[in-house]
Amino acid sequence: MKIALIQINPIIGDFSGNAALIEKEVHRAKKMGAHLAIFPELALCGYPPLDYLEHPSFLEEQNKYLDHLIKKIEGIAVLCGVITSCEEQNGKPLHNTALLFRDDEVLHASHKKLLPTYDVFDESRYFQPGTTSQFFCLDGLNLGITICEDLFNDIDAFPEQLYDTDPVAELDAKHNLDLLINIAASPFTMGKQHLRKKAFSTISSKYDLPLVYCNQVGGQDSILFDGASFVLDGQGHLSAQAGSFAADLLIIDTKHLSSITSPEVNEVAAVHDALVMGTRDYVRKCGFSKGLVGLSGGIDSALTCALACEALGPENVMGVGLPSPYSSQGSIDDARALANNLGIRFELLPISDIFESFKSSLAHLFEGYQEDVTEQNIQARIRGVLLMALANKYQSLLLTTGNKSELAVGYCTLYGDMSGALAVISDVPKMLVYELSRYVNRERQIIPTSTIDKPPSAELAPNQTDQDDLPPYEVLDPILAAYLEEHKSIADIVSLGFSEDVVRDVIRRIKINEYKRKQAAMGLKVTSKAFGFGRRYPTAVKFGG
Amino acid sequence: MKIALIQINPIIGDFSGNAALIEKEVHRAKKMGAHLAIFPELALCGYPPLDYLEHPSFLEEQNKYLDHLIKKIEGIAVLCGVITSCEEQNGKPLHNTALLFRDDEVLHASHKKLLPTYDVFDESRYFQPGTTSQFFCLDGLNLGITICEDLFNDIDAFPEQLYDTDPVAELDAKHNLDLLINIAASPFTMGKQHLRKKAFSTISSKYDLPLVYCNQVGGQDSILFDGASFVLDGQGHLSAQAGSFAADLLIIDTKHLSSITSPEVNEVAAVHDALVMGTRDYVRKCGFSKGLVGLSGGIDSALTCALACEALGPENVMGVGLPSPYSSQGSIDDARALANNLGIRFELLPISDIFESFKSSLAHLFEGYQEDVTEQNIQARIRGVLLMALANKYQSLLLTTGNKSELAVGYCTLYGDMSGALAVISDVPKMLVYELSRYVNRERQIIPTSTIDKPPSAELAPNQTDQDDLPPYEVLDPILAAYLEEHKSIADIVSLGFSEDVVRDVIRRIKINEYKRKQAAMGLKVTSKAFGFGRRYPTAVKFGG
Repeated sequence: MKIALIQINPIIGDFSGNAALIEKEVHRAKKMGAHLAIFPELALCGYPPLDYLEHPSFLEEQNKYLDHLIKKIEGIAVLCGVITSCEEQNGKPLHNTALLFRDDEVLHASHKKLLPTYDVFDESRYFQPGTTSQFFCLDGLNLGITICEDLFNDIDAFPEQLYDTDPVAELDAKHNLDLLINIAASPFTMGKQHLRKKAFSTISSKYDLPLVYCNQVGGQDSILFDGASFVLDGQGHLSAQAGSFAADLLIIDTKHLSSITSPEVNEVAAVHDALVMGTRDYVRKCGFSKGLVGLSGGIDSALTCALACEALGPENVMGVGLPSPYSSQGSIDDARALANNLGIRFELLPISDIFESFKSSLAHLFEGYQEDVTEQNIQARIRGVLLMALANKYQSLLLTTGNKSELAVGYCTLYGDMSGALAVISDVPKMLVYELSRYVNRERQIIPTSTIDKPPSAELAPNQTDQDDLPPYEVLDPILAAYLEEHKSIADIVSLGFSEDVVRDVIRRIKINEYKRKQAAMGLKVTSKAFGFGRRYPTAVKFGG
Repeated sequence: MKIALIQINPIIGDFSGNAALIEKEVHRAKKMGAHLAIFPELALCGYPPLDYLEHPSFLEEQNKYLDHLIKKIEGIAVLCGVITSCEEQNGKPLHNTALLFRDDEVLHASHKKLLPTYDVFDESRYFQPGTTSQFFCLDGLNLGITICEDLFNDIDAFPEQLYDTDPVAELDAKHNLDLLINIAASPFTMGKQHLRKKAFSTISSKYDLPLVYCNQVGGQDSILFDGASFVLDGQGHLSAQAGSFAADLLIIDTKHLSSITSPEVNEVAAVHDALVMGTRDYVRKCGFSKGLVGLSGGIDSALTCALACEALGPENVMGVGLPSPYSSQGSIDDARALANNLGIRFELLPISDIFESFKSSLAHLFEGYQEDVTEQNIQARIRGVLLMALANKYQSLLLTTGNKSELAVGYCTLYGDMSGALAVISDVPKMLVYELSRYVNRERQIIPTSTIDKPPSAELAPNQTDQDDLPPYEVLDPILAAYLEEHKSIADIVSLGFSEDVVRDVIRRIKINEYKRKQAAMGLKVTSKAFGFGRRYPTAVKFGG
């Protein structure tokens, strides 16, 4: 059977646009001779619709367009992720479903059985797990039809079993399957493409089953779906591979699955591509086209601006230098050089006069108090006000430039450099910022060498550098990863070879800055644990561990 | 049997403080002759610990203090909410448990069976549902020991059954119960005290069972636990009632449960008390004592400031007037009068000079552009910078003053009036702001009459009033409630008697301002659906319904 895997990039709730896209792609697949077109999980409504699922009108609206598709598409079977009503009296009212239809007839509905409820996933909040069969025989081909997490409880493929059942084992025990299908909305994180393929290969070879994996693509707020759909041949070997971070259509013939070499994944390049896609999709899906970046001359804003240019085009990006009394001429030069290299509009808006105006307004209330971080914050906030004023006036989105290491320890100013619509690199640790910057410069110098080489500084006080206040990033980053991503205890992290004082201080800073991150701009997720939606901590806490 | 219900106000993760509090209260209960002391759900770690539950060190630390309590407490049984390890191989690693212990011996562990996963609750994210018995016979008394949601699936008490099983029905079918116990961490929302009592009364009379309900008290970030623990006599009549919004200890004798009159709940007073408690607890639990409020002369900031004074004491609250070129003298006078009535420090910081300084810095970049909302936002943001500077310098928390109606339709400025640590009234619709203000003035005029009587205005442009841009609040508020709290469709809301154009415009505004609320200060939850943690919507969306 000829099958088309179609990884699309839907917009959440855009039923008319998503349905039109599905219809167009089905016609294309049909012309290419496909008998079955497969779309990702919740492809018609977009993933994740979150609390829109609690609005009855959301399901009604989806069903209008679904009915239209079912009626209109002829001569080819379609398997598409949709939400459906749950018929049980108790429990959550919806299923997460893979619906198979052809020629105005619904042939089968496979409901997702394993509902991820961790990190960015809240599926138990909305869905009732499926209990009915995930098997269907289509034109003599015995299909096991699973949805994303349904494949993630295999005891040989995964170190931990989060669920009581394994849908694949159930399917295999009851049916003589010819093909295992998995439709997914599986977000990118570093290393995941490799892990996914390894796990699915284990499953494919364990059951001697070809496996067809169709993943969503595109940025949906902070979540970056990488697509990268693929087909395994029944011995766990790769047989076909769709592109990453872009819509794609892949045609296979189940009778002729030859094995191909798995492409190597360059993780730095993948993160780069993910961030470009995420920036482009967020700006576009919010109805904007232009971006604005404050350029300090430092590496974080340089990288953010370079990514923005790839995402939006240099003609849509504006850089603004906002030197303070403590900014060096070198920093201003570096900012301008970057803008020149990128070919974007650059403006300089010194903040010293406004800073003086604030200081003199506050002088009588600050009498008798020492200068402290307050004055640094005022400078950062003046920049925030100026950049937001330009974003408002020019109908651009302000892109925030802070990295994950800073955000973790609170080395950033709320309503200052944290202001903006999207935090492009807020899930990128500082050491990876350097790697990405070198990757950006792989063909020619875009980010000035002096920006990459100089010691990082906020330039909010005389001769300040990050390392006056923080451990070196070579030390900070692995401590952060151990705590944030792996939930290691202080003792465990110390045993990796770090000083106990440093570890305690880093973890203390992470905790006392929870409040800042609660009001941070949305960031693009590229690690297994990003700040934001998938990381939920109380603020008013007293826990030392 | 003499039983003490002890509603405590723990701090999340403060094991040493919480354990000391539990120990002290147990001794008090013992002195009063109690044989059993009952504490709320997750009383030892505080509720909700959220992702701290994913840190093995959190459980370890709890268990150190739990072991200490089990060893140390003698001569009285204790039933206390704790987290425990789940012994099943698959699934989530923890249980939400009611642990019964006495004289260095654990007598019984009841695991929560129904795990709420909606609104602010994410229990399926962390816990495995219990499958073992919730029955224990203590000194001849047959106890059914349930945890919060376990009581919320009774078919006669609740309109919807969210779960497949009813733990109370199971207990009743298997055991000859003498007493039903429920330990809880059940948040306050308007009307909930009444609903809770009505539902539990239905259950108590249905099974002819006395019911002991022990609820947590205190503010934990946005969630406000009201306490209000109570005992029903077996015919569903109230037999004992603890206080609301304060720690309390209630002693009952199961042999002598007489019925008392249920106290009437004044919902406006309850919201008032909830907000005062929430403000006090947030500030205190974050390690602060002082609050700062920007006073515009309007009703929202006046109410916020009055609540802050009750929460923190007038000596710990400072009011700041920040008149713009468009502020009326009346507004400045009203702000000062409020401060005088409250007896707080008041300072005036006009923003006109700084505003001029911003305008002249931006003039060359704004050439050829019309004045628009940008200039209004700049004014609001200057105030934000000044207030944050004072908060930083004086080590105070800035309290945000926006109400729910404004926040819903985005009638507020990100990084401007939205700046602050805690949004005291961000879940209070404007019409309720008026009711609360009159309640604040119940004994003497605190909020000036002119503040209450004048038309609401942001005063960011000449002769501006809210109603230039928004429908009257009498129209706006019920539309917001129908959409936000009840998820009604446009058609349903129109059928309530509102203009379709108005309804569509209000819902459109709610959606396009999702991005602002994602960066809003944490707010105190008093309605069934507050903005913030319990309301989760994607930002980049295209859904008209």
